[in-house]
Amino acid sequence: MFTGMAATAAPQRVPEERLEAALADLRALLGDERVATGADERRQHGTDESWHPPAAPDAVVMPRSTEETAEIVRVCARHGVPIIPFGAGTSLEGHVAALRGGVSVDMREMDAVLRLSVEDLDVTVQAGVTRQALEAKLRPEGVFFPVDPGADATLGGMAATGASGTTSVRYGTMRENVLSLTVVTASGEVVRTRSRARKSSAGYDLTRLFVGSEGTLGLITELTLRVQPTPEAMSAAVCAFPALGNAVDCVIGVLQLGIPVARMELLDDVQMDAVNRFAGMDHAVAPTLFLEFHGSPASVQEQAEEVEAIAAEHGAEGFAWAADETERRGLWRARHRSYEACLALRPGARAFATDACVPISRLTECIVETRRDIDETGLLAPIVGHVGDGNFHVSVLLDPDDEAEVARAVAFNERLVRRAIALGGTCSGEHGVGYGKAKFLELEHGPVVLELMRALKAAFDPQDLFNPGKIFTLTANGPGPI
Amino acid sequence: MFTGMAATAAPQRVPEERLEAALADLRALLGDERVATGADERRQHGTDESWHPPAAPDAVVMPRSTEETAEIVRVCARHGVPIIPFGAGTSLEGHVAALRGGVSVDMREMDAVLRLSVEDLDVTVQAGVTRQALEAKLRPEGVFFPVDPGADATLGGMAATGASGTTSVRYGTMRENVLSLTVVTASGEVVRTRSRARKSSAGYDLTRLFVGSEGTLGLITELTLRVQPTPEAMSAAVCAFPALGNAVDCVIGVLQLGIPVARMELLDDVQMDAVNRFAGMDHAVAPTLFLEFHGSPASVQEQAEEVEAIAAEHGAEGFAWAADETERRGLWRARHRSYEACLALRPGARAFATDACVPISRLTECIVETRRDIDETGLLAPIVGHVGDGNFHVSVLLDPDDEAEVARAVAFNERLVRRAIALGGTCSGEHGVGYGKAKFLELEHGPVVLELMRALKAAFDPQDLFNPGKIFTLTANGPGPI
Repeated sequence: MFTGMAATAAPQRVPEERLEAALADLRALLGDERVATGADERRQHGTDESWHPPAAPDAVVMPRSTEETAEIVRVCARHGVPIIPFGAGTSLEGHVAALRGGVSVDMREMDAVLRLSVEDLDVTVQAGVTRQALEAKLRPEGVFFPVDPGADATLGGMAATGASGTTSVRYGTMRENVLSLTVVTASGEVVRTRSRARKSSAGYDLTRLFVGSEGTLGLITELTLRVQPTPEAMSAAVCAFPALGNAVDCVIGVLQLGIPVARMELLDDVQMDAVNRFAGMDHAVAPTLFLEFHGSPASVQEQAEEVEAIAAEHGAEGFAWAADETERRGLWRARHRSYEACLALRPGARAFATDACVPISRLTECIVETRRDIDETGLLAPIVGHVGDGNFHVSVLLDPDDEAEVARAVAFNERLVRRAIALGGTCSGEHGVGYGKAKFLELEHGPVVLELMRALKAAFDPQDLFNPGKIFTLTANGPGPI
Repeated sequence: MFTGMAATAAPQRVPEERLEAALADLRALLGDERVATGADERRQHGTDESWHPPAAPDAVVMPRSTEETAEIVRVCARHGVPIIPFGAGTSLEGHVAALRGGVSVDMREMDAVLRLSVEDLDVTVQAGVTRQALEAKLRPEGVFFPVDPGADATLGGMAATGASGTTSVRYGTMRENVLSLTVVTASGEVVRTRSRARKSSAGYDLTRLFVGSEGTLGLITELTLRVQPTPEAMSAAVCAFPALGNAVDCVIGVLQLGIPVARMELLDDVQMDAVNRFAGMDHAVAPTLFLEFHGSPASVQEQAEEVEAIAAEHGAEGFAWAADETERRGLWRARHRSYEACLALRPGARAFATDACVPISRLTECIVETRRDIDETGLLAPIVGHVGDGNFHVSVLLDPDDEAEVARAVAFNERLVRRAIALGGTCSGEHGVGYGKAKFLELEHGPVVLELMRALKAAFDPQDLFNPGKIFTLTANGPGPI
C-alpha cells in the first residue's frame, strides 16, 4: 500500500457501543448471515481500484429492496453510524473507503431490470444492475444505454459518480441520461426525484443533484434511464497523427462541422505501444484516434468520409477501417483494456489512475505539457483521452513499495490538477472527487462555492453519515486522511 | 384582472422604514435616476405574460455589472428586502410578481456578449442578452444557440426557468446547454458554478441546481452556453393526420429509429385553424406535424424520406415540403406566432397559457382527454405540443372580466395538471412553477421531496429574500396568494 499517503491522524470513528447497538439492530432486521463482519469481506468493501489507501467498514450488508435499504439507513441514522454505498468497487478516487468506519451497503443483490419501455425509450433498474448486464437485457429489444465508462460498474455507482466515457461526446454523460432516481434520504425516507416525463420544470433539479453526489447526499436504490435505439449501422476506424496537436486539431475540426461522431478516443504513443503489445496489434506507435460512427448505412459512410478528409488535412498517416463487426469489437476491446495494457508494460506495478478535463482549445497544450512533465519526472505513464470532451486520463505505473516513486507520482498528480485548473478546466472530468481529490475542490471552485456545497450537504445530511470524508475533507470529525 | 384568483389574505410586505432605508442605500449606490419607483415602471416589472395577478415591486433597479448586482443584493439582504430578478417579462406562471414587494432587478442593461470560442463551441453572455440578440451575434460565426422557447426571452431568464422549446427533442433544454453560471448568492457574494470544461465531476452540480430555480436560490448575472455548428442544410415539412393518435404514433416511430429530427411540433385542429387564419395559410384543419431536419444535404434528404415513409404508415395525408429557405422560415414564424394566432381567434380575449408533459406513450391519451375536457367545459383552447418530448401547451382564450369563465378555466387547468401527473407526467414541462403552479408541487413530488427542496432553499437563502413565494407557496410570511 502507498503508505506515504496514509492518514497522519486517524479520523474519529463510531464509538464501539453505538456500533454494536447498530449491528444488533441490523442483525434483527436482516438475519445474522446478511450482516457480514469478516475481515476479508470488510477489506474488500473498503477497497476500490484506486491507489488511495483503503479503509475497511465495520460491517457489510446487502439489501434486496428499496424498503430494506431505507430500514438499514434508519438503523444507522438512529445510532449515528456512517453509511457507505458500494456498487462494483470500480471507483478511482477512494469513494468506498470507510474513513470513519461504519456500514458498507453493497447494492449488488438489487440487480433487477424493473421495467423497459421501448416506446418511451426508457428503462428502470435497481441500483445494483451492472452496465454489461443491462446491455445484455437491452440488446434483443433494439435499444442500448450509451454511457460507457469501460469498467463493468453498477448503474447506481455510475450515477453516484456522474460517470461518462467513450460515447459521451455523442450521447452525453450520466447527467444527461438519468431521468429519475429513487433515493433513500438521510432520515431513511424514500423519494423519487421526478417523473418519467422527458422534460420537467417543476421545481429544483434534484436528479442532477444526486447524480455525481458520490453517496454523500442520499443512497440511490433505483434509476430510470434514457435508452437509445441501436444504430442501424456502426463503423470504426483508427488513424495515426505525426503529433498530438494534429490529432486534437482534427477532433476540433470534426466537432465544428457538427459531424455526430459516436466515439473519438485519443491514445498517445506510450499508450499505443502498450495496446499493441497487450492486444497483439501492429498500429503505428504515434498519437492515434480511435473513431466510431453510428447511424444509417449512408450516414455512417458520409460521416466517415468527412472525418477521413479532415484527418488528412491535419496530416493523418493512414485511416484504417475496421473491416467488419468482429474487427470493430476487437478495436474497442483493445481501447477498453488499455488499463490492463498499461499494467502489462511493467509487470508487478500498480496503476495510479487520474483524470482531468480542459476546454478543448487548451487540450493540446495541457497534454503536451503533461507528457513533458511525466518524462522529466521519470515516470512511466500512458495517456488516453475522451478527446471530444477535452478529458484525458493518465495511468502512472508504480511500484507501490517504492516510497520515492510514489511521492513523485503524487507530486505529478498535483501539478496535473493545477495545470488543468489554470487552463480553465477541472480537477476531474469523470472519476469524481472521492477523498483522493477532495483537497483540490476549493482550489478549483473557490471558498464560496465550497461553502454552498457544504450548506447543501448539511441540509440533506445534517449528521454527516452518508459517505463522510468524500467530496469534502474530514474536518468536522478530526483531520482528514490526506 | 382575474380577481377570482387574487390574494385572500395579503402576504406580509417589508415594513416601510426598512424599505426606505434600502432605497436610500440603493440611491447612494446607483444614483437617483437608476432607482425607479414610478407606478408604470413598477407595474410593468410585476407583470408577465401569464394570466396570474401581477404584483408590483416597490422599486426597479438596472445593474450594469455583476459587481453592481452583488452590491444591490447586499443592500437588500442588509435590510431584509425581497429581490425579484427580471429579464424580458415573458414568463408564464407569475414568476416576476413581487408578492411581498421588494426590489425588481432588471437585467436588460447587462446585454453584452462577453466572449465566443468557436473552437470550444461555447459563448459567455451577460444575463440580459436576449435569444434573438445572441442569434444575430452568432450567425456570422457559423454557430447557433439551439434553445428556442419562442418568446424573445433573456438568456438569464431562460436559465432561471429552465426553458426549452421546439428544438429540445434534438438539442436538449437549458439544462443540457448551460455550461456554467455566474451567480450572486443571498449573501451578496459572486460565484462561478463551474469551469468551461465540457464535463466535470468535481463536486455537486450547482449549475443544474440554479438552472430552473426561478431566481429563488441566487441571481444569475452571466452564463456560459454551449453552441452548435450551423447545419449545412435545413429543410422543413408539414404533414396532416386523420387523428391525433396517428401523429403521436408517427413521432414515436421516428424516435425509435433514432432519426435525429431537429423539430417535431404538433398542432391540433383548433390550432391549425387559428394558424391558417392568422398567417393566411391553407393547411388542412387537422392534427398536424411541423417537422425540421438539420444536417448535411444528403442526411437531411435521407431523414426526410424516412420520416415521410413512417408518416405514410401512420395514415398521413400528404407531406408538404417547404420549397426554400423563405418558405421554411415562414412555416416556423407561423408556428412561433401560434400564441398571437390564438388571440386572434377571439378578439379582446386574453390567453391563459398552461403546459404539461407526460411520457410519450401516454401523450395521445392525455391530449385526447384534454381536448374532450376543453370542449365539454365550453372553452376555446387550441393545443400545440413539443411532441417529441411529450410536452404540450393549451392556450385558453378568456374574457378576463367574465368570472364564471375564468373559474371554468382555473378548474380545467387543475384537472389538466392532475391528469398529467396521474399519467406519470409533470405539472409543467417548460413554463416552470412561478406562483401559478406552486400549489401542485407537493401533489407531483410528495411531501418528502418538497421538504428536501425547502431545505435546499433554506440553505441557500435563509432569509427567503430571493423571489419569495415562487416554487413554494408563501407560508413563512402569511398565507399565500393562491
